[in-house]
Amino acid sequence: MILALAGGVGGAKLAHGLVRILSPDGLVIAVNTGDDFEHLGLHISPDLDSVMYKLAGLNDTERGWGLADESWHFMEALARLEGETWFNLGDRDLATHVERTRRLAAGETLSHITAALCGALGIEHRIVPMTDSAVHTMVTTEAGTIPFQDYFVRLRCEPVVTGFSFAGAESARPTPAFTAALKSADLSAIVICPSNPYVSIDPILSLADVAAALEGRRVPLVAVSPIIGGGAIKGPAAKMMAELGLQPSAASIASHYGRRLDGLVIDQTDGALAPKIEAMGIPTHVAQTIMKSADDERTLAQEVLTFAASLNVRSK
Amino acid sequence: MILALAGGVGGAKLAHGLVRILSPDGLVIAVNTGDDFEHLGLHISPDLDSVMYKLAGLNDTERGWGLADESWHFMEALARLEGETWFNLGDRDLATHVERTRRLAAGETLSHITAALCGALGIEHRIVPMTDSAVHTMVTTEAGTIPFQDYFVRLRCEPVVTGFSFAGAESARPTPAFTAALKSADLSAIVICPSNPYVSIDPILSLADVAAALEGRRVPLVAVSPIIGGGAIKGPAAKMMAELGLQPSAASIASHYGRRLDGLVIDQTDGALAPKIEAMGIPTHVAQTIMKSADDERTLAQEVLTFAASLNVRSK
Repeated sequence: MILALAGGVGGAKLAHGLVRILSPDGLVIAVNTGDDFEHLGLHISPDLDSVMYKLAGLNDTERGWGLADESWHFMEALARLEGETWFNLGDRDLATHVERTRRLAAGETLSHITAALCGALGIEHRIVPMTDSAVHTMVTTEAGTIPFQDYFVRLRCEPVVTGFSFAGAESARPTPAFTAALKSADLSAIVICPSNPYVSIDPILSLADVAAALEGRRVPLVAVSPIIGGGAIKGPAAKMMAELGLQPSAASIASHYGRRLDGLVIDQTDGALAPKIEAMGIPTHVAQTIMKSADDERTLAQEVLTFAASLNVRSK
Repeated sequence: MILALAGGVGGAKLAHGLVRILSPDGLVIAVNTGDDFEHLGLHISPDLDSVMYKLAGLNDTERGWGLADESWHFMEALARLEGETWFNLGDRDLATHVERTRRLAAGETLSHITAALCGALGIEHRIVPMTDSAVHTMVTTEAGTIPFQDYFVRLRCEPVVTGFSFAGAESARPTPAFTAALKSADLSAIVICPSNPYVSIDPILSLADVAAALEGRRVPLVAVSPIIGGGAIKGPAAKMMAELGLQPSAASIASHYGRRLDGLVIDQTDGALAPKIEAMGIPTHVAQTIMKSADDERTLAQEVLTFAASLNVRSK
C-alpha cells in the first residue's frame, strides 16, 4: 500500500496517476486541510475538493481549479446584494460546500463526509483529510500574520512572506484512516506529492502523530519536487522561497525536507542539480515531472513508485 | 400611510401596485415569515423573497416564483452528491439565502437584513418581516402535523388539511417597523393582500400584538379575496377550504376574516356574491382582481385604496 501526502492541484495530478496504477486497497491519499476556512458561513476545503474533483474527472483543466463547465450566477447575484465577493464560488462547486457544511453541522466528521462525497462521485480510492480537527495555516508576512486564504486569494500572495504557522496543529490528531495508513503493515512507501512544501505539505507534517510516525517509519519516504527550473508550475512556492532568502530550486526543496527524505524526484530540467542533492545524502531520481496529460501523470507515478521501491530507509 | 399585509406571489403583485401609487414614506409592506425554514443549513424566507424580487423587478413571471433568468447548476451538482433535492434553489436565488444566513449568524435581525438586501436591490419602499422571531406555520393533516414547506413543496399539498397552527407565535413580537406602522398616526388604511388566508395572512394575525392593534384600529381594514370563481389563482387555498368543509368562494373569505374586516374586494366574476357578503355586514367592492400586468396591479391597488377611503371602521 502507498500513502500519498497531497495539497491541491499539483498533488491531485500525481494522485490521479497513482490511482491509475494502484487498486483502491493499495492507496491512501492524505490531503492538507490547513487551508480550509469558513466563508459566507460555508466550510470550504479547497485541497480536498481539488483532489476529489480531479479523481472524479470533474476538474476544470483550463482554469486550473474548481469544476469543469462551471457557472458563476451565484457570484453575480451575491455582488448585486453587495455581499463579499473576493473568493469565487462556482454554482456547481457551491453544492459541495453547502452539503459539507450541512453534514458538519449535523455532527458528521470531515472524514466521514469526504468518504460520502467521494462515494457519490464514484471515487473508489480513499481520499482522507489529514485531520478532522481545525488546523489553520497562518502566513507570517511583513504586513502581519494573515490566514492562508486571505493571503492567497484576497491579497493575491502579494505580502512578503517571513514564515508560516499552523494554528491548532499541536492538538490535532490525524484522521483514523490516515493514522491507520501510517501504521499499516501493508505500507510500502510514502509519497510527498509535488505540492507547495510550506502551505500544502508542512501542515500535514506539523501534526505531532504524523511527524512521529514518519520519524519511526520502516518504509521509504520519497518526494517529488514542485520546483522545476527555478519556478513552480502553479502557485506561490517559488515566490515564497525567494522571500525566505532561498534560491527557488529543487535543491532548496531537498534542503527543506532534509533528512526526512529517503529520496527526491526532480525534473529533467534540473538534472544538473542531482549531484548537489545527492551530496546532501538524498538519493535523487530525474524524471519528466511536468504533468500535462493523464499519461504524464501515470508515467510519473510509476517512476516514483519504482524509485521508492529501490530506496532504503535512511538510518537515523 | 398604508400598511399592507402580504404573503408570497399574490401579495407581491398587489404590493407592487401599491408601490406604483404610494411614496416610500407612504407604504409599509409587512410580510409573512411563518413559512420561513432552514434547509441545507440556510435560512430561507420564501415570502420575503417573493415580495423583494417582485419589487426589484427581478421575479420570474413564467415560473411564478423565484428569480428571472435563473439557472439550476447548484441543484444538479447537489443531486450528483446525493444531497436533498426536494426544495429547488436557483443559483442566483442561493445568494439571497447564503447572505441572509451569514448575516443572521453574525447577529443581525431579519428586519435589518431585509432592509439591507432591499437597499442593495434598489427598493425604496419598506418591506418588513412580520417578526424577527421564529414562527413556524404547522399544517395539521390527516397524515399528521407537518411543517409548512414539507406540506407545500415536499408533499405537494397532498395531505388532507384539518387545521393550522403557528409555533412560536404566542411569544413572537412584530418587528419594530411593523409595530411602528400599526401605531402610526399617519396610518390611513390596512390592506390584506390577496394571499392565502390560512398560511400567509393568519400567521401575521396570530401575533398577539398585531391582533390587539387591529382590534383597536382607527383606520379601515380591507382585504382582497384570493379566491376567484371558486378557485385560487395559485396555491392551495381553495383545496384547503374544501378540505376544511368550506365552499371555496369569496364568501368563505368574508366569513374567515369576519368582523375583523371593514370591507372586502372581490372579483367581478363573483359579483353575484356581493349581496351575500354585504348581508354579513361587510361592505363589498367588485373589481377586476386578476393581475396579469403591472397596469392591472396598479389599477387594483388604486381601487382598493379608494374603496378603503370610503369605509368606516366598524363599531365593535
